[in-house]
Amino acid sequence: MGSSPSDSSHTFLERVSSELGCAPTSQDVAVYLDKRDPLQHLRKQFLVPRVGDLPPTDLSLVDGTEDCIYFVGNSLGLQPKSAGKYIDEDMDKWAKMGIHGHRAGKRPWAYAENNIEDLMANVVGAKAEEVALMNGLTVNLHLLLLSFYRPTAERHKILIEDKAFPSDYYAVESQIRMRGFDPQQSLLLMKPRAGEETLRTEDILATIEREGESIAVVLFSGVQYYTGQVFNMAAITAAGQNKGCFVGFDCAHAVGNVELRLHDWGVDFACWCSYKYLNSGAGGLAGAFIHEKHTHTVKSTLWGWWGHDLKTRFHMDNVMDLLPGVGGYRLSNQPFLLVCPLQASLEIFSQTSMQALRQKSKLLTGYLEYLLKHYYTQDEARPDKPYVRIITPSDPEERGCQLSLSFSVPVDTIFNELEKRGVACDMREPNVLRIAPAPLYNSFSDVHRFVNLLGSALGSRQRPH
Amino acid sequence: MGSSPSDSSHTFLERVSSELGCAPTSQDVAVYLDKRDPLQHLRKQFLVPRVGDLPPTDLSLVDGTEDCIYFVGNSLGLQPKSAGKYIDEDMDKWAKMGIHGHRAGKRPWAYAENNIEDLMANVVGAKAEEVALMNGLTVNLHLLLLSFYRPTAERHKILIEDKAFPSDYYAVESQIRMRGFDPQQSLLLMKPRAGEETLRTEDILATIEREGESIAVVLFSGVQYYTGQVFNMAAITAAGQNKGCFVGFDCAHAVGNVELRLHDWGVDFACWCSYKYLNSGAGGLAGAFIHEKHTHTVKSTLWGWWGHDLKTRFHMDNVMDLLPGVGGYRLSNQPFLLVCPLQASLEIFSQTSMQALRQKSKLLTGYLEYLLKHYYTQDEARPDKPYVRIITPSDPEERGCQLSLSFSVPVDTIFNELEKRGVACDMREPNVLRIAPAPLYNSFSDVHRFVNLLGSALGSRQRPH
Ligand SMILES: Cc1ncc(COP(=O)(O)O)c(C=O)c1O
Ligand SMILES: Cc1ncc(COP(=O)(O)O)c(C=O)c1O
Repeated sequence: MGSSPSDSSHTFLERVSSELGCAPTSQDVAVYLDKRDPLQHLRKQFLVPRVGDLPPTDLSLVDGTEDCIYFVGNSLGLQPKSAGKYIDEDMDKWAKMGIHGHRAGKRPWAYAENNIEDLMANVVGAKAEEVALMNGLTVNLHLLLLSFYRPTAERHKILIEDKAFPSDYYAVESQIRMRGFDPQQSLLLMKPRAGEETLRTEDILATIEREGESIAVVLFSGVQYYTGQVFNMAAITAAGQNKGCFVGFDCAHAVGNVELRLHDWGVDFACWCSYKYLNSGAGGLAGAFIHEKHTHTVKSTLWGWWGHDLKTRFHMDNVMDLLPGVGGYRLSNQPFLLVCPLQASLEIFSQTSMQALRQKSKLLTGYLEYLLKHYYTQDEARPDKPYVRIITPSDPEERGCQLSLSFSVPVDTIFNELEKRGVACDMREPNVLRIAPAPLYNSFSDVHRFVNLLGSALGSRQRPH
Repeated sequence: MGSSPSDSSHTFLERVSSELGCAPTSQDVAVYLDKRDPLQHLRKQFLVPRVGDLPPTDLSLVDGTEDCIYFVGNSLGLQPKSAGKYIDEDMDKWAKMGIHGHRAGKRPWAYAENNIEDLMANVVGAKAEEVALMNGLTVNLHLLLLSFYRPTAERHKILIEDKAFPSDYYAVESQIRMRGFDPQQSLLLMKPRAGEETLRTEDILATIEREGESIAVVLFSGVQYYTGQVFNMAAITAAGQNKGCFVGFDCAHAVGNVELRLHDWGVDFACWCSYKYLNSGAGGLAGAFIHEKHTHTVKSTLWGWWGHDLKTRFHMDNVMDLLPGVGGYRLSNQPFLLVCPLQASLEIFSQTSMQALRQKSKLLTGYLEYLLKHYYTQDEARPDKPYVRIITPSDPEERGCQLSLSFSVPVDTIFNELEKRGVACDMREPNVLRIAPAPLYNSFSDVHRFVNLLGSALGSRQRPH
């Protein structure tokens, strides 16, 4: 295997296997790594689906009673065990005391979300006052852009990555139109170099340097949903702000996945959803961040009663006492049913740190990469052998837990064969599988089993069905 | 008692009591009315809190094992019994199959809210395609105003009621500012005549007639949250549109309370929350309506992936295929946890009709009014006797289930004394109790008990504590 910055985990794996007296590909390595994983107890706080309960499973191929291999936490995280308990508590409160639940109980609904914003802030590297939990991600992105995107004839562009997530793309496109500009002129798409899949930081920075004067907002994802690339948020922020742009990040795929320091990096604004690595359930409460430095200068454009100072919010005198900072962006009262699972998940995060998770993650994904390369590297000598290309950067600093794989054979068959074998992962047109071992609940054994099953999935393609 | 349009229920009550051979104030009347209530079985589908479980209850004054008197469904409706069941089903689905829940199960999360939009549409008198369930009310109001409020130098005003709900007030104020206008000039507040509490339809229509040319949007509530007045939505819509204005309604207090015919009335847009009379739990999924006539002419200003045609939404090609009509206003994916209780509630609504509910409601609230007037009308001969004034219009067509009461004595003591006695109701500064017998689950016996307890609450004020 070639030398790459991920060699440190590869070197480590080879050392471990030699100490164990087995091949690096041996299951013993996975078992050993799981045993010494200081975060292994966290998996027990989640409900892991069993193979037999996944709809596409083919029980003639696999044992239905085993835990499935859940590598799709980048799309929908697993359920924290205490989520159901908290929901039951609040449903019980509603049943027993109705309206009084607004003030009584463990999560007084009148400000339930406020009680977990400090936990949320820890995960994104922010101060509690810089974070609001509310709405869905795209709603929050719009609310933020309404403040931060104020185009002028000279400075009217928004710079985003070429393959930005559709909702972000549509959001930006519509904001540009709303302000009377033309996306053809004002939407600047950052494309990879010809023949490359991911963006080079140097190219991003050069684009900002070159076009910065005409850019109002630089909006990148923290982690690219398709390629799994982690952008250098600190550098992009500095470069953008140096040119007088506001810099924001969609952290949907970054939050709970990589270490974020939104405050320290001086990021202007950010938003994220909570149903991926934050495990809050489909459609969970989203987050928004506005840096402290804007507290008294940037104000919400659209107002609602939830942005009114809580102390006097219910005086109902129609005199707005807008909360400073991101608090003033609140519009509607928030649902306790969404606070419950998010609290459950954030409490698990609070038992560790993003640093510790990230450390495990680098090894876990490095292990996946090692095995994939070992088994499925292109072999010129065997042109028939199907191979896997990893689109995601090999530098562990440039990726989170996800690896995006493209195949030399049609991806849909492989995806179906994996699904039949109890692997939950994600296929994206045209030719990519996204494989996300989440450090919070995935194990080294998951990775080892996955690579084996991938082998049988690839093998089965050739057999007639 | 003076003659008023509510006499029909009063006449009815007097006839019933004379047939029963008792006084109209006798408990026998309540018992009789409950027995012949064709909707009485619906109460059994809700979890009614017991007196002893309400935090302010004083068990030395009342029996804790009885059902409480829940007259605050105008603020937070009771929990439908099947809400918990549906939530459990979906939590179980999440636990068992994770990501596959998006496509599998009774409520595939990828379009869970779409499955109940026809039920929702029935309750507001709309076609299913005219309704979207999403976000919170204020968020939806903003999204709608971004399309319908397009001020020009000539036509830049928004007409709202003077005491509009704070969130609506702030929303409108901020939209006016956002468009570069000044609320001082562009926010037109419709005030009651001197000495009056509610607005006269004739005055509203005259204002529209007089100012209509400068009004961009007429925005009223369907039912006024403070006074309980029902506005003549059909007449206001016609008058506004006749002057070239768009006409919208905040139906937070109207939906599930009075009959709405948003489609037939030709209302341009509307929004509502679902946690009041729709019983979906605090922060429940809100609704938005755009009339069919605008399907191909009015487009969402802000876009998100959930507004993309579902058939191709997940192709992720960043080419927007915007859903026509209100569907195109969707931004973020919606939470199944909020769909569950709303579905539970809407299924109860679908067992009856708003017409039948309204018929019961008129009698129920008429009965409350009758007893209040009987016991607590001002008596010039007894200046010491505390009395109650009903702010809400006496014409049953001009009110829903709620009566707003002002008292000749300080309202906070009365409120506290009622709360000690197991009554859940709502106090609003400066001097009003809002009492809302919801026809879906409240009974005539609730009303009778309430009036008795009000008597002891008023009596207890005079005693030293
Ligand atoms: C009339 C009215 N409008 C708006 C709202 C605000 O609703 P939300 O918090 O869902 O935006 C309420 C809430 O009680 C209301 O009663
Ligand atoms: C990167 C990214 N941005 C935006 C979204 C849209 O989120 P929402 O539906 O909560 O608005 C997603 C959802 O998967 C996403 O992955």
